[in-house]
Amino acid sequence: MTDVKLSLDQAHDLAMRCLRQAGCDERNARAVADTVIAAERDGAQSHGLFRLPGYLASLKSGKVNGQADPKADRISPGVVRVDGDMGYAPLALEVGREPLAEAARENGVAALAIVRTHHFAALWIETSALAEMGLATFAFTAYMPAVAPAGGSKPFFGTNPMSFAWPRRDHPPMVFDQASAAMARGEIQIAARDGHEVPVGAGVDANGNPTTDPNAILAGGAQLAFGGYKGAALALMIELLVGPLIGEATSVEAGRRDSKDGGPPTSGELMLAIDPARFGAVGFEDHAEALFAELLSQDGVRLPGDRRHGNRQSTPQTGIAIPQALFDKIQTAVRRG
Amino acid sequence: MTDVKLSLDQAHDLAMRCLRQAGCDERNARAVADTVIAAERDGAQSHGLFRLPGYLASLKSGKVNGQADPKADRISPGVVRVDGDMGYAPLALEVGREPLAEAARENGVAALAIVRTHHFAALWIETSALAEMGLATFAFTAYMPAVAPAGGSKPFFGTNPMSFAWPRRDHPPMVFDQASAAMARGEIQIAARDGHEVPVGAGVDANGNPTTDPNAILAGGAQLAFGGYKGAALALMIELLVGPLIGEATSVEAGRRDSKDGGPPTSGELMLAIDPARFGAVGFEDHAEALFAELLSQDGVRLPGDRRHGNRQSTPQTGIAIPQALFDKIQTAVRRG
Repeated sequence: MTDVKLSLDQAHDLAMRCLRQAGCDERNARAVADTVIAAERDGAQSHGLFRLPGYLASLKSGKVNGQADPKADRISPGVVRVDGDMGYAPLALEVGREPLAEAARENGVAALAIVRTHHFAALWIETSALAEMGLATFAFTAYMPAVAPAGGSKPFFGTNPMSFAWPRRDHPPMVFDQASAAMARGEIQIAARDGHEVPVGAGVDANGNPTTDPNAILAGGAQLAFGGYKGAALALMIELLVGPLIGEATSVEAGRRDSKDGGPPTSGELMLAIDPARFGAVGFEDHAEALFAELLSQDGVRLPGDRRHGNRQSTPQTGIAIPQALFDKIQTAVRRG
Repeated sequence: MTDVKLSLDQAHDLAMRCLRQAGCDERNARAVADTVIAAERDGAQSHGLFRLPGYLASLKSGKVNGQADPKADRISPGVVRVDGDMGYAPLALEVGREPLAEAARENGVAALAIVRTHHFAALWIETSALAEMGLATFAFTAYMPAVAPAGGSKPFFGTNPMSFAWPRRDHPPMVFDQASAAMARGEIQIAARDGHEVPVGAGVDANGNPTTDPNAILAGGAQLAFGGYKGAALALMIELLVGPLIGEATSVEAGRRDSKDGGPPTSGELMLAIDPARFGAVGFEDHAEALFAELLSQDGVRLPGDRRHGNRQSTPQTGIAIPQALFDKIQTAVRRG
């Protein structure tokens, strides 16, 4: 089956049309479409139009509020809390962005707690946006139980990504966004579909034994964290930061709430933004550039995020390609209204 | 060779005597001895009396200031900066602890940047201290080049540990402290001495090829980060946080400064403390306890740090045991004056 080629504008229009028809008002549609197309622009198809059917299903089921009106509230000098009004996260993040940046510039460091949203997007889009404003930024979120704790054999943690972005003067930010899980769930599902094995360390079977059989991981087993107990410790940290700390659902709680309509249950996100200009170090930008230059002087090394930045340069000219099957699925969703 | 048994008080006295004789004033000696004995108390021998000869050598060589008078300065509402006056980190951390806690309670989140110190201790001791005060706390530090970047083959990152501690009401804090390196350098050295192989993923040889030969890693090769490129991304993040952000040495810079006297070159540390009470979540403590309880309901699972907490209960009664060779080495250092 061939791919369907779209310009970024066409892809954005398509997403907007679908989201409006599924019940989004203009602001919510635009915030989600911007996020989805930013992922496509950067070559991250797994967070691009591929997710649109999930967005649409959960809007149509009424679980997600397409008319959400998120409000930012600076509840402490260094803490901005956004009530997402049960909408998708992108608009809540947009509403929180300036208040977070302002609090970080005033204090040196500040937090943004996003609650009562449905989170379905990549974190790097938002950490990059803050880094473009000169702030070093962390983001954390949790999702649904998929990853076993160290020593355990049952799904408990979400795939629990963490992103970090560092601002650069004459370059796009250095940014990474990585799951606590060793492998993306989608990759394991694809291996199962295609009859391939997965690497050792990807997961355990229902008895808690390491396995390379993707079906054993998906049916009764569990994924594993990257790097063994160390990745699992990060996954636990992320549960605490986006669950108890901000008063949102941990992954196991989200799993209990899940309505299985293809969209995500309610969850939260924590961001921490740091203004390097408030830390008293002279020449921090040059110092970081010297670090990057020396790092890149090793053969074979590149900075995290560089592939995405490369795509960001080219896709505005080349456009993007999505599988015909996905395009048809989206078109059907539009027609069904 | 048998071990030498010491009570915690005897071990503390021994450390104090050595440190005073090596040029520490009372405050500096006590801060370092407290940290070293806290590690012994918790069963973390690698950061206990085992490190004392290194502390002593770098005090005697004059590299480290045993009379350091660290000063805390709140340079932004959410940023405390401590100039360590070229002493060992424990006193600088002690001086920064209350100001950090105060700033975190006022703002919800605050940072502590420690500069101009020599860092040789475990991070979990300090993150636990903050968590005992009710604050969720991160700490990061870098050291000397040991770990290759993703795709590279030469030491660039330090073993770069990160610690996180979460406060609990009726329990010691949940705390982890883990290197970005897949294996501790000491473990690789021991494998080399004993003629054992190390696991795949521990390091590469001088040509950048994966190897299980510890000698190939130590002689011209490099250690690897845990979990491949994901651990390497964390190691890079830590370099940025404790180098450019706070104006201290990155690992490659520390390596250039190293005087090879057995003690660490100058480096910095970043801590981030969060006051959960300022985040607007109701019942965060109970929420976290429910998460821990459900986690521990899986067979084979325990919380990070639990082994150390167990040791903390028992060592005050049982005392500790150190190898005769280490005891002799310390005694010789005392006699030499």
